Amino acid sequence: MRIALGLEYDGSRFQGWQTQPGGGTVQDALQAALAAIACEPVSVTCAGRTDRGVHACGQVIHFDTHAERPDTAWVRGVNGHLPESVVVHWSRRVAESFHARYSAQARTYRYVLINRAVRPALSARYAGWLHSTVEVGPMREAAGFLIGEHDFSAFRSAECQARTPVRTLHELAIERRGNRIDFVLRANAFLHHLVRNLVGALLHVGKGARSPVWVQDVLQSRDRSRAAPTFGPEGLYLESVAYAPSWILPQAEPSPLHVPLEA
Amino acid sequence: MRIALGLEYDGSRFQGWQTQPGGGTVQDALQAALAAIACEPVSVTCAGRTDRGVHACGQVIHFDTHAERPDTAWVRGVNGHLPESVVVHWSRRVAESFHARYSAQARTYRYVLINRAVRPALSARYAGWLHSTVEVGPMREAAGFLIGEHDFSAFRSAECQARTPVRTLHELAIERRGNRIDFVLRANAFLHHLVRNLVGALLHVGKGARSPVWVQDVLQSRDRSRAAPTFGPEGLYLESVAYAPSWILPQAEPSPLHVPLEA
Repeated sequence: MRIALGLEYDGSRFQGWQTQPGGGTVQDALQAALAAIACEPVSVTCAGRTDRGVHACGQVIHFDTHAERPDTAWVRGVNGHLPESVVVHWSRRVAESFHARYSAQARTYRYVLINRAVRPALSARYAGWLHSTVEVGPMREAAGFLIGEHDFSAFRSAECQARTPVRTLHELAIERRGNRIDFVLRANAFLHHLVRNLVGALLHVGKGARSPVWVQDVLQSRDRSRAAPTFGPEGLYLESVAYAPSWILPQAEPSPLHVPLEA
Repeated sequence: MRIALGLEYDGSRFQGWQTQPGGGTVQDALQAALAAIACEPVSVTCAGRTDRGVHACGQVIHFDTHAERPDTAWVRGVNGHLPESVVVHWSRRVAESFHARYSAQARTYRYVLINRAVRPALSARYAGWLHSTVEVGPMREAAGFLIGEHDFSAFRSAECQARTPVRTLHELAIERRGNRIDFVLRANAFLHHLVRNLVGALLHVGKGARSPVWVQDVLQSRDRSRAAPTFGPEGLYLESVAYAPSWILPQAEPSPLHVPLEA
């Protein structure tokens, strides 16, 4: 049978999502904990692979198993075998046709930035940082050029393995409260480093180095060398993954310390 | 001359505030960085010693030095010598009569609690956790019995070295947003483990194990054995220290990820 799980993890304490021979990744920790409950090896597939240092409040995964267990075993039982930096929020038995990655209709990422003179200490691994003063207005204007279906080659990393660079960006909200600026991006899917490259470009506009229309020029050029540098992974959170309502999966819960500003 | 500094640090990455022979404390890291800028040994005194695992957004310290340096050297210069988990926010030259601890008129601590079924992962080291459902109303009623000048012996740790157990609690605000509950306590000074013991007692009331007036009974008994267990250090933040306005010290800045709920 196929089981889906909702996951939260602290990316600063792992070597990224994807399993590697030396271990130390979220997938390694999760598969070991699931195997302990299933009493058989388990291989999981996630909705969005996150890089080293990138966090998740609402990652979704699926796996196949012969083990018949109640939903609570896949939550409380598995949590008892996981390190403190990762936790299962919910579990649901799903049809074999469900796929964490291919059934996903949209993903939402949040980038949290601290904008002040001194670097963050408490949030050193949980937020990006920029000391230059940033204006939100020009960034929102630039964000308008990015909404919709585009070839995002100019904002894609050289290592990106996606077959096509075309993605549909449904939302790009920018919210400021005090010294904190949040960028919330929702798209059908993302390219490798897309959020971190877009945030870098928007901040280039926000600090006045470029005008808002420059972002449109870069987008249309499809030339990665014209964009701004990639921003660090510390501030990036995979916040939620959306599936068709017919799958009846629970909503992702934002991490309480990272309560959305508009709530 | 005497210099005052404002400090932020991630308590999960240190062995507490106070220097120890093996190093690894905030004081050890700070004194080494100050010595590098001052070119002489520096010994610092803080407003409130924090235990292992306890964080600070608004710690204040002072030290004496023969080194003449601009304010920026005591901020940017020192920050260049500090690990990422601690940062100096501001620096001011103060009169010899200023004392970070004895001149302080009040301290404000914040305890952040996550109240949900599954343990936190992203905030494992940045918030306390209680899975039982908690009601804020009864806790606020109980908090009313704690405001004012009292003998807080019932909420003091056995290792507390204060000469008197009498303290004046000016404020005890309890705020809920979603699954997060913040306790904000302001007092002239605190006893060892006072916040963590008060939070433990209030949560005992919040989950319905005791009625609000029980907190008053425990307070009046002055008997530590009657109170609830001490809550963990993860959720505790030294948020600010208040001095007479005549000292002209900057206000503490809350850590942007921990923006006060009411802001």
